[in-house]
Amino acid sequence: MNTVTGFASATIGNVACGFDILGFAIREPGDEVTLTLLDDPRGELPVSITSIEGDGGALPRDARKNTSSFVVLKFLEYLRSTKGIEFNGHIELELKKNLPLSSGMGSSAASAAAALVAANRLFGDPCTKMELVHFAIEGERVACGSAHADNAAPAVLGNFVLIRSYNPLDIITIPPPADLYCTLAHPHIELRTAYARSVLPRTISLKMATEQWGNVGALITGLLTSDYGLIGRSLVDVVAEPKRAPLIPGFFEVKEAALSAGALGCSIAGSGPSIFAFSSSREIATKVGNAMEQAFSSMPDALEADIWISPICRDGARIID
Amino acid sequence: MNTVTGFASATIGNVACGFDILGFAIREPGDEVTLTLLDDPRGELPVSITSIEGDGGALPRDARKNTSSFVVLKFLEYLRSTKGIEFNGHIELELKKNLPLSSGMGSSAASAAAALVAANRLFGDPCTKMELVHFAIEGERVACGSAHADNAAPAVLGNFVLIRSYNPLDIITIPPPADLYCTLAHPHIELRTAYARSVLPRTISLKMATEQWGNVGALITGLLTSDYGLIGRSLVDVVAEPKRAPLIPGFFEVKEAALSAGALGCSIAGSGPSIFAFSSSREIATKVGNAMEQAFSSMPDALEADIWISPICRDGARIID
Repeated sequence: MNTVTGFASATIGNVACGFDILGFAIREPGDEVTLTLLDDPRGELPVSITSIEGDGGALPRDARKNTSSFVVLKFLEYLRSTKGIEFNGHIELELKKNLPLSSGMGSSAASAAAALVAANRLFGDPCTKMELVHFAIEGERVACGSAHADNAAPAVLGNFVLIRSYNPLDIITIPPPADLYCTLAHPHIELRTAYARSVLPRTISLKMATEQWGNVGALITGLLTSDYGLIGRSLVDVVAEPKRAPLIPGFFEVKEAALSAGALGCSIAGSGPSIFAFSSSREIATKVGNAMEQAFSSMPDALEADIWISPICRDGARIID
Repeated sequence: MNTVTGFASATIGNVACGFDILGFAIREPGDEVTLTLLDDPRGELPVSITSIEGDGGALPRDARKNTSSFVVLKFLEYLRSTKGIEFNGHIELELKKNLPLSSGMGSSAASAAAALVAANRLFGDPCTKMELVHFAIEGERVACGSAHADNAAPAVLGNFVLIRSYNPLDIITIPPPADLYCTLAHPHIELRTAYARSVLPRTISLKMATEQWGNVGALITGLLTSDYGLIGRSLVDVVAEPKRAPLIPGFFEVKEAALSAGALGCSIAGSGPSIFAFSSSREIATKVGNAMEQAFSSMPDALEADIWISPICRDGARIID
């Protein structure tokens, strides 16, 4: 018997102007997946879920439908077909969910990434992290119906991740500036990705598109040259944020509070409802977090919000036990 | 009496995916502007054009209408209003145009930039190059009706230049990878910027826009990390190139020839008709140039084309005499 626990942290997709092509990982919070290898087969599938904590019973227990076990099944298929590793035993999976569902924090991607590094370790790390990204993306299809990579890739790889193309998959890792801190505010409401996607326009003006890709180019430049001022000026989303902000009660007040407290920039985390801000030190990021929490709680319909302060995660999904 | 000659080289706007926000300068060819300072006023304006060579008589001789003299007038106004420098003499301007008009090679921007560095030197360099960029952009309004910066800024500053925003103007210089070479092919036809702009769509699908900004982010990453493969993969323009390519006879054959000869990527220079390709050495760039010239000349209606091979210009507009 062999037991391994993997951990993968929250990730934030889009990053203002980088709609659908950019994401990054923070260091905490994150999901934990413990895999236990049994030598003998058990049941129909080579993987079964023995426990899930922290989801309030919302996630499927069927190993084919839960993201964390689904990606392990895909991983085992790949080992057989590509690496010539035949597995005739059984894997028990325990999932400890620390990330809220439908939060814009990459909850499903974190579970998938944690499960994948654990599975990879059980077999002696036969796959590279970039190989694991492919399975994590497949997991997103199970979790939310479309195979997006802007949470899945940073959940596995850490850092900022740019998805240049899906066909073929072309994923580029961008290391973060040393003093870049993220403040993440998660108000206690849920917002379904599919609904947040339905409010987006199908076409945009060329002028607006040009403005957006000017900011994308500038944001990447800011990240790669540690130009914090440029990062701040580039965190502008003229496409998705104006449509999605009305779905998040208090968005404008919270953003204003973050900027007033010294944040470089602030926008919606993924498709929301969480809101992220960047700062150039932990001290400022902490002040920003207090200001964001205060802004959520002082609305007419006060919202409770969880606040996390974190540097950018550089190592991605990892073994913790 | 005091005489100074400025030089500014050809620039290439758009750079495939970077429509309207990206440009770069090559080292040659370029325009030359010689300014002669006379102590006494002469005529109504403080600047007059005494000669233009190389334009076939196409450019205006009126100092208010010619880009090169217009930007010097703007520069003098700025010296008076902002720097407290009153000029009561006269400046004679000689323009030697080496760049073809309506070629996609930033011809008007080169004349403006050359004039501006010369004028600045005449007065002891009171302005920074970034200040000069503002006048060069104003010159584009006179030359082609809109104040675009994707030729004007690199003509003055050299390197790659990203225009994040026009209001306020936010211009970011990106140094080129050491071994990046440009092959520029200029077929002997003219294509008016205004016409090439009229064929563009006013709206594009969000999917297409997302693909474009994924490539913009990747191209900037490739440039800043000297990842030549990534630069090549990112030189994709799904927005303007498909609409403008049919305006350039032989575009697809020339692009195919460039790529087959080893170019990293190839697209339309500015709004055309010139075509540029990037290579990772001078040797490859030279082969690419031969292949592009051959492709133009072997079309049913053979086109002559000038070919230039050049590294990226790092110093921008400069004094040569």
